[in-house]
Amino acid sequence: MKPVMRSIAAHPDLELQVLASGTMVLERFDLPVRVVKQDGFPVDGEIYIELEGSTPATMAKSVGFGVVEFASAFQRLQPDIVLLIGDRYEALAAAIAAGYMNICLGHIQGGEVSGSIDESARHAITKFAHYHFPSTKRSAEYLLRMGEDPETVLTIGCPSGDIARSLDRQLRDEVINGRGGGAQIDLAQPFLLVVFHPTTTEYGGEPVQMQQLLGALNELKQQTILLWPNIDAGSDHVSKAIRVFRDHVKPCWLRTLINVPPEEYQRILATTACAVGNSSSFVRDASYFGTPVVLVGNRQEGRETDVHVLPVAPEKDQIFSAIRSQLSHGRYPASSLYGDGFVSDRIADALAKLNPYVQKRLHYIYQADGNGSGKGGENGNGEAVATRNVIPCKSSAS
Amino acid sequence: MKPVMRSIAAHPDLELQVLASGTMVLERFDLPVRVVKQDGFPVDGEIYIELEGSTPATMAKSVGFGVVEFASAFQRLQPDIVLLIGDRYEALAAAIAAGYMNICLGHIQGGEVSGSIDESARHAITKFAHYHFPSTKRSAEYLLRMGEDPETVLTIGCPSGDIARSLDRQLRDEVINGRGGGAQIDLAQPFLLVVFHPTTTEYGGEPVQMQQLLGALNELKQQTILLWPNIDAGSDHVSKAIRVFRDHVKPCWLRTLINVPPEEYQRILATTACAVGNSSSFVRDASYFGTPVVLVGNRQEGRETDVHVLPVAPEKDQIFSAIRSQLSHGRYPASSLYGDGFVSDRIADALAKLNPYVQKRLHYIYQADGNGSGKGGENGNGEAVATRNVIPCKSSAS
Amino acid sequence: MKPVMRSIAAHPDLELQVLASGTMVLERFDLPVRVVKQDGFPVDGEIYIELEGSTPATMAKSVGFGVVEFASAFQRLQPDIVLLIGDRYEALAAAIAAGYMNICLGHIQGGEVSGSIDESARHAITKFAHYHFPSTKRSAEYLLRMGEDPETVLTIGCPSGDIARSLDRQLRDEVINGRGGGAQIDLAQPFLLVVFHPTTTEYGGEPVQMQQLLGALNELKQQTILLWPNIDAGSDHVSKAIRVFRDHVKPCWLRTLINVPPEEYQRILATTACAVGNSSSFVRDASYFGTPVVLVGNRQEGRETDVHVLPVAPEKDQIFSAIRSQLSHGRYPASSLYGDGFVSDRIADALAKLNPYVQKRLHYIYQADGNGSGKGGENGNGEAVATRNVIPCKSSAS
Amino acid sequence: MKPVMRSIAAHPDLELQVLASGTMVLERFDLPVRVVKQDGFPVDGEIYIELEGSTPATMAKSVGFGVVEFASAFQRLQPDIVLLIGDRYEALAAAIAAGYMNICLGHIQGGEVSGSIDESARHAITKFAHYHFPSTKRSAEYLLRMGEDPETVLTIGCPSGDIARSLDRQLRDEVINGRGGGAQIDLAQPFLLVVFHPTTTEYGGEPVQMQQLLGALNELKQQTILLWPNIDAGSDHVSKAIRVFRDHVKPCWLRTLINVPPEEYQRILATTACAVGNSSSFVRDASYFGTPVVLVGNRQEGRETDVHVLPVAPEKDQIFSAIRSQLSHGRYPASSLYGDGFVSDRIADALAKLNPYVQKRLHYIYQADGNGSGKGGENGNGEAVATRNVIPCKSSAS
Repeated sequence: MKPVMRSIAAHPDLELQVLASGTMVLERFDLPVRVVKQDGFPVDGEIYIELEGSTPATMAKSVGFGVVEFASAFQRLQPDIVLLIGDRYEALAAAIAAGYMNICLGHIQGGEVSGSIDESARHAITKFAHYHFPSTKRSAEYLLRMGEDPETVLTIGCPSGDIARSLDRQLRDEVINGRGGGAQIDLAQPFLLVVFHPTTTEYGGEPVQMQQLLGALNELKQQTILLWPNIDAGSDHVSKAIRVFRDHVKPCWLRTLINVPPEEYQRILATTACAVGNSSSFVRDASYFGTPVVLVGNRQEGRETDVHVLPVAPEKDQIFSAIRSQLSHGRYPASSLYGDGFVSDRIADALAKLNPYVQKRLHYIYQADGNGSGKGGENGNGEAVATRNVIPCKSSAS
Repeated sequence: MKPVMRSIAAHPDLELQVLASGTMVLERFDLPVRVVKQDGFPVDGEIYIELEGSTPATMAKSVGFGVVEFASAFQRLQPDIVLLIGDRYEALAAAIAAGYMNICLGHIQGGEVSGSIDESARHAITKFAHYHFPSTKRSAEYLLRMGEDPETVLTIGCPSGDIARSLDRQLRDEVINGRGGGAQIDLAQPFLLVVFHPTTTEYGGEPVQMQQLLGALNELKQQTILLWPNIDAGSDHVSKAIRVFRDHVKPCWLRTLINVPPEEYQRILATTACAVGNSSSFVRDASYFGTPVVLVGNRQEGRETDVHVLPVAPEKDQIFSAIRSQLSHGRYPASSLYGDGFVSDRIADALAKLNPYVQKRLHYIYQADGNGSGKGGENGNGEAVATRNVIPCKSSAS
Repeated sequence: MKPVMRSIAAHPDLELQVLASGTMVLERFDLPVRVVKQDGFPVDGEIYIELEGSTPATMAKSVGFGVVEFASAFQRLQPDIVLLIGDRYEALAAAIAAGYMNICLGHIQGGEVSGSIDESARHAITKFAHYHFPSTKRSAEYLLRMGEDPETVLTIGCPSGDIARSLDRQLRDEVINGRGGGAQIDLAQPFLLVVFHPTTTEYGGEPVQMQQLLGALNELKQQTILLWPNIDAGSDHVSKAIRVFRDHVKPCWLRTLINVPPEEYQRILATTACAVGNSSSFVRDASYFGTPVVLVGNRQEGRETDVHVLPVAPEKDQIFSAIRSQLSHGRYPASSLYGDGFVSDRIADALAKLNPYVQKRLHYIYQADGNGSGKGGENGNGEAVATRNVIPCKSSAS
Repeated sequence: MKPVMRSIAAHPDLELQVLASGTMVLERFDLPVRVVKQDGFPVDGEIYIELEGSTPATMAKSVGFGVVEFASAFQRLQPDIVLLIGDRYEALAAAIAAGYMNICLGHIQGGEVSGSIDESARHAITKFAHYHFPSTKRSAEYLLRMGEDPETVLTIGCPSGDIARSLDRQLRDEVINGRGGGAQIDLAQPFLLVVFHPTTTEYGGEPVQMQQLLGALNELKQQTILLWPNIDAGSDHVSKAIRVFRDHVKPCWLRTLINVPPEEYQRILATTACAVGNSSSFVRDASYFGTPVVLVGNRQEGRETDVHVLPVAPEKDQIFSAIRSQLSHGRYPASSLYGDGFVSDRIADALAKLNPYVQKRLHYIYQADGNGSGKGGENGNGEAVATRNVIPCKSSAS
């Protein structure tokens, strides 16, 4: 989201407001919102919504609290447009609040396909969104097939590529070895990056999946940076499996990090010999870097992937073989499947020019009538509005 | 929902649980939940979610509280399937709670098109629902186009027709004149029925719209039963317009009723000379009765209607002329657009036979691969499960 | 609260912030917050907390939502001091939020005694409050006996008297007859004022109590202004009793008003021949005006009252006789039991001089040790802080 | 709470219902509620209320959510009496819900004095409680001085002593070394027990305090069992200080445990050579065992302590000296300050005999009138009710 925020802040016809939520505001995740502030962005609200427990019920309730809190924030800030990215529960919560409050909603990364409850949440957000900024052509096509108005499906390409394009990829030792716990990592040697989030729709199956993954790593004994999981339902199960493994096996090759600032994370992803797990960044951001990926399990099932991704079931032998295979293959050429690295400015331009409207309606009924536009007279000539507030709801990545 | 509840309760392979929410549990609406209990249904939870205020922000927050409360109820009741009807905010809340809690969700009346925020909420519910029971063929087709798996789009037809089919249509005087306030209604003479809910996406415009409607009625001076609006954002505006009109004009032709038990409401709808306003029941239930309808404004814009419906803008002269026209036309033949009156048993049968699953995925990706089924091996042979819990979330109609 | 807000706004060392909650922000109560804005006060937040239902459970939940919402507001506004008045659930909610957030809390009207759940809430607020501004000497003494530090029990006297002192008491006809419904009131003739709120601790008993009260009024047939009840648990029962009475008896002597701006309410209270019911304003504000009061039931049981108050049980004959007795007695001399009319400036001065601290501790333990001060070194020299934020949480009166 | 639950379950005139909340239901704390179930108690509800963040604002909101959730549970379970223990935010939440819902409230451990926000919460609970079961004579006296009715201040003594009295004190190695992380503990040798919770009213000061404590331990290098803190505001600060210390110093004498079943905790407390930190159990439970305690900081400031407690400021040198002093002193004789070990049965008996009532009123007003009883006719003869529901709200200890 950061490159989009930068483009919005720099745009003469747009005024930026920022709400931080999700793990962004959690001390337990090292308060990523601090980085946002250090980068010079305004933060107009910090929204705490996560109920402790990391069960399906508490995750559902966190959505509910999110709706309540975002409604308060929107009532106060009165934005012209709310801009969301992705498919996380905090994004869903903000979408519902905006929808019921008649605020025009823009959505980045709609139309994609994956596993976990994020799959349903993403399409539900689409159904509340007034304008769409899909990352790929397939996503854009899917949005149209779902009944969204073609005039509202705008800029194609994912802004995460913009970071990758301009990123200084030099990874500093202190970022890795100056924090967290476990083995020291020699950055001059190949290392693995492991991120494994729970798949909420397979709640209860995480401990075994994580054990299989750790078992494969323990065979390899390659130096490894492991990040703790996000806070989806089931994350306590994943964390516990890691702690038990660490306490029993006392692996000399494993370093654990609680949270890493977003750009440092990009540097790790750009540098690692192989990324193992199920973060969506392995599909998306890693494609720009050509980083070899072993994609474990169903969390990203259905996403568009480029050749750098090798999907496997969450079974020790398969994971072990796939990592070996990727390590021997080495780095892939950079991909532009998810954008050309100049997407954010196009999104900001589109935001400045679009015409906020309120009433959505399934576009099929206009097609049936042979009527080309769902918003007809409402949408007018689309000239640029002088200034307008845009709130990107900044939240934790998946 | 009542005929479906009856069919579920009577089905040997299903166990019924009931949650009542929305205006069902509000004293201000005469506690409709009492009727449910009197009809012999169990009520396993009464869920209060409406925040006072009836502004867009409080309506959004009511969704949030609904998610929280339904999550608590589902955690306690552990249903196999949650069954929802319609597009109201309490239905959306229940859908999100079920989705994040990995509970299989069935949805009645998906795929329809209307105005108000209900339009977005309905399609968002579809995106969380695992099985669909659309009311019309067009709705079913739209669900498929939106990417739902064909195997999950089941029984077509709306259960509201089941009530109409078997209803004793005799309206008793005390139901009308034994409660509420204002003029006495002579049921032997023609009377109008007026229900006008706010269109949330036009928040702020309700007072003028209601004044236009009341102005038209005041020209006609035909005896009229008016029901107070539901509790969507803007309803206090509508109520105030009614109160001001009543206090200033002191109309001798107007009777106001706070709430009417569902079957009595059906009888009024079957008997009235013309229904005026924007309740979805005017499109749906009135079609079985052939009741002439003047549909005012955009709340139901886009819904499939039969010939009994005459849509007009919320302007006094148009409304006046349309009512006159409908009164001179008189009753229409019964329509079967929304079902044949035998739908509920088919829904119960389908519930007993379906195979609950958790992970949804946009069906397009299977089509692209030439793969016919989204749930493949998971879905198995679909034989009937011995007993299962089904929770229909009973809520207020729109 | 208004005179205190005015004194704070005018004080050179204080900065005023205002949060409006409770019925202040409800359209159903005619948005009293509008008057606050018209009077030129800033309103830094509007907080919606009332869950529909008016049952004991929904009232409890409204407290809970209130804590959540006030916590968001305090996090955003970062006040030095939060100033509350009274014993209502929104005040309790704000007190808890401030307490857990380590914000210094000032409380007006602590130490009083009454019925209803307000009694418990008031003393619980005292236990979170760091400074107290009791209305009477008895209240101040009770605060000390409850273990509050004598150094924190400040200015004695109720600011509501400040309004009364300077009020222009001229009641305009349009305030009464230009709004609401029912009979016209001839302000040149004696009229009754009736306000009857539910006593939450007697939930379920309200309909009979209100019927008794209405029965007494129907015997008198004196022209009467009746205000609808607040939104405590049970208020829907009271409202329904009024509506049923109005629809059946069609009393020609009764005018109902939904809400009245605070100063107009004071004028009615100053003018009425007799106030009947259980509003705390009948005990407090009416004392300045010497207005005869018939205090019905237990809601104010235990409050200090002056001679103008005649308490009766909620029984028709007793109420009837008491009103007759008060009407024949006529107006009483003004009382200064609740303050001298110059209290607000003293409160503002005290706020400017007090020393915010965080950790409270039951004062008894210092007495036992023969140690005179509970806050010892923390409290320091107590010099005035240059500027400080004060948030009075403005809410509905009881 | 367990011995009280056992006594209630065994009592012929009482029916037990149990709600588990707080850290009891958190996987992160090893789901202590499992132990409750294993012990054969019914668990009628699991209530998740903790918002992630552990800031003052999120702690306040957790109280709010708690009120909402307990209100739902009480609405469903309809208890005659709610029985609470202590001063934690979940207890406050349950007290408020019960109060506004007119449910008779019993409170164990009222009238005590401490630091942290618990001090205010405890007395606020007292103000909602209808019956009190104080732990000590001083507490009972304080309750009366606060204006509670003498007839409602019942059994004196703390039920936690009942566990201690009958406890088999044999500590098994696997409880300590079969879980958690860090050094192995030789139970045949003296070991320290360290528990340090944040003092919410000193939010922000925790890291330094914990560093001082860890610094003192690092001088001693005595083998040590350290438990992670509870989830009060500031706990993430404490946890982080521990993790940083562990990662940098890599102490060979330190074992960390996430959570320990209550009875095992008692065994550790009974066995340790010295308990260091600020848990209330160090004041209360340790007194029965005569365990030497070094009480660090202000969290328990003001509590009644026996001779086994040595209070110090949170400064390295003072803590170091105090531990040395306590180690050389060795074990103290058992104390009966907090009860004789036969308290629970007396509480159950009192519950069976007490007369539930609703309306509280500050007792001073009866004293002033020379009237001996606050509840007069309501309280009647107090004969035992045949059966009644009692809900002890089981929650995490402080």
